Amino acid sequence: MQQKRLRFTGSQVDFYFDASFTQLSKLVDKKNAILITDANVHAAHPSRFKGWKTIVLPAGEATKVQNTVDEVIRQLISLGADRTTTLIGVGGGVITDLTGFIASVYMRGIAFGFVPTTLLALVDASIGGKNGIDVGSYKNMVGTIRQPAFILQDLSFLKSLPGKEWSNGFAEIIKHAAIKDTSMFRSLEENDPSFYQKKKSALSELVRRNTLLKTKVVQQDEFEKGDRKLLNFGHTLGHALENQYRLSHGEAISIGMAFAARLSAGLTGFRATERLTGLLQRYELPVTLSFDPGKVIEVLKMDKKKTPTGMQFILLQRIGSAMIKEIPVEHIYQSLK
Amino acid sequence: MQQKRLRFTGSQVDFYFDASFTQLSKLVDKKNAILITDANVHAAHPSRFKGWKTIVLPAGEATKVQNTVDEVIRQLISLGADRTTTLIGVGGGVITDLTGFIASVYMRGIAFGFVPTTLLALVDASIGGKNGIDVGSYKNMVGTIRQPAFILQDLSFLKSLPGKEWSNGFAEIIKHAAIKDTSMFRSLEENDPSFYQKKKSALSELVRRNTLLKTKVVQQDEFEKGDRKLLNFGHTLGHALENQYRLSHGEAISIGMAFAARLSAGLTGFRATERLTGLLQRYELPVTLSFDPGKVIEVLKMDKKKTPTGMQFILLQRIGSAMIKEIPVEHIYQSLK
Repeated sequence: MQQKRLRFTGSQVDFYFDASFTQLSKLVDKKNAILITDANVHAAHPSRFKGWKTIVLPAGEATKVQNTVDEVIRQLISLGADRTTTLIGVGGGVITDLTGFIASVYMRGIAFGFVPTTLLALVDASIGGKNGIDVGSYKNMVGTIRQPAFILQDLSFLKSLPGKEWSNGFAEIIKHAAIKDTSMFRSLEENDPSFYQKKKSALSELVRRNTLLKTKVVQQDEFEKGDRKLLNFGHTLGHALENQYRLSHGEAISIGMAFAARLSAGLTGFRATERLTGLLQRYELPVTLSFDPGKVIEVLKMDKKKTPTGMQFILLQRIGSAMIKEIPVEHIYQSLK
Repeated sequence: MQQKRLRFTGSQVDFYFDASFTQLSKLVDKKNAILITDANVHAAHPSRFKGWKTIVLPAGEATKVQNTVDEVIRQLISLGADRTTTLIGVGGGVITDLTGFIASVYMRGIAFGFVPTTLLALVDASIGGKNGIDVGSYKNMVGTIRQPAFILQDLSFLKSLPGKEWSNGFAEIIKHAAIKDTSMFRSLEENDPSFYQKKKSALSELVRRNTLLKTKVVQQDEFEKGDRKLLNFGHTLGHALENQYRLSHGEAISIGMAFAARLSAGLTGFRATERLTGLLQRYELPVTLSFDPGKVIEVLKMDKKKTPTGMQFILLQRIGSAMIKEIPVEHIYQSLK
């Protein structure tokens, strides 16, 4: 286990790389902590939860709604949780998002930490302090930005991860490479999912590299006034598709990245669309989808990145370099058609 | 109108003293603002809301719940509210608490401002950034701490304020005086509610003095690690009584202050209990209530100020000087009986 303390505006996060879940009891007092997890994680690792107060939620994106928040708050009250309690989200992005949001509003904010159990949560969802819930088709419409006290990374949770969940994580890893890291993009092209699944040291290195890449972007722009927006590459269209077409997050943003790359070709002169779509496909991700542009544009219009005059869209200039451009909604609509 | 910009941790609030509601349109763009108010305020001042997008909520503490938040968020989505929108709470503490909370979580946080319309909201609820909703009998169990962009004080709203609402506000004013301001305590003893209702300059001075007193406490301790806790004087028992016995906030904390004063007599040697209860009664506030100590202690145990070993209780040493003392729950229970 290696500890690294990283500072954000007014807070700090202790990262524990290559750690083990059993070390959690050294970070928090069991009597004063409540774990939040989902039924899949709980069923796959029952012994890990012994002796911990645990709230088990149904697995899946449909759980990331206000009803769940209401129910967890009722349970926290009956468990006697107070301002000295630490909530710990043990799970994928749905669990870390819910845990972070609940801890941010319960008694006006209590401490929380994460043990991400999916590749997506390890390299992306657990990092950066964004949390939230969905409202109807609108992803993360309600939430806050608040950093966890710690993130404990135990890669052994990935042993129980289904293949589709690996692709979900690789979608965000490819996104990081496409916007910020040409050399990682090349490494990914030289390898494939089964390489990382088999070679523990390569996976550990990949997780750490992505953790630090995302952390650095967030440290420089925690409240998303500028550069942090680049992390939304592929997410604008992705989010509009995800809940409407019941795609996984990775599938949705993969299609979103492919669309943004094609849009970039016409607007920034980006010339590596096929290289990007090739890499996405290498990691078993879709790059096209037949959808209803009218329905999608209606959801897009309510995206958090919308302004009165258009949408702040993330485009690529070349592999490893991205930019923000305001695009009129009508132009996006024509491109979608 | 006099403007004063006051800084908090990572944010600033523009206070407009002795201002007029009509000046609101100079602070925000009407097209990009949404007002939130209650049915009483809206009915008493219909012309003021003309030309403003307005969400009208039922009046009263029962509205300060998650169901209202859900409904307002649905309305914000259908009104097309985005990250450039400013929410403006025009009302008493229920409206400012709801508006602050909704703006803190909608799209992970948008700008908001307040136009407090009650004496209580002017001198207390609108100031300090605490917002929240009730969960069952538990007051403000869910919320955040986030400062508004501005507070516009228009005392003409008080013309439509019922007498009971004046007492509500005076309860917080007397609290401020009791914990921090001996000279204001004396002025309050020399005058009475009708004096302030009739003499506009005295009222304006009183509102400003209380605004600045509370702001100073919050500036020094925004996240309530120390001195801000003193503002909870009378609120621990008060909150436990308020929703269970359907008291107004002022009535509840008045009874809470009288109880805390009697408790102080035994623990700090405080000798002015009768002077405090006399002043509360002068401002038409109750100082005793017949209640069920067992039921009240159950709610007290879930108070946000509870710790594993007891409760952080605010006691008086003398008029104008308060302190925090951890008291075992059993001791409080015996005193309640």
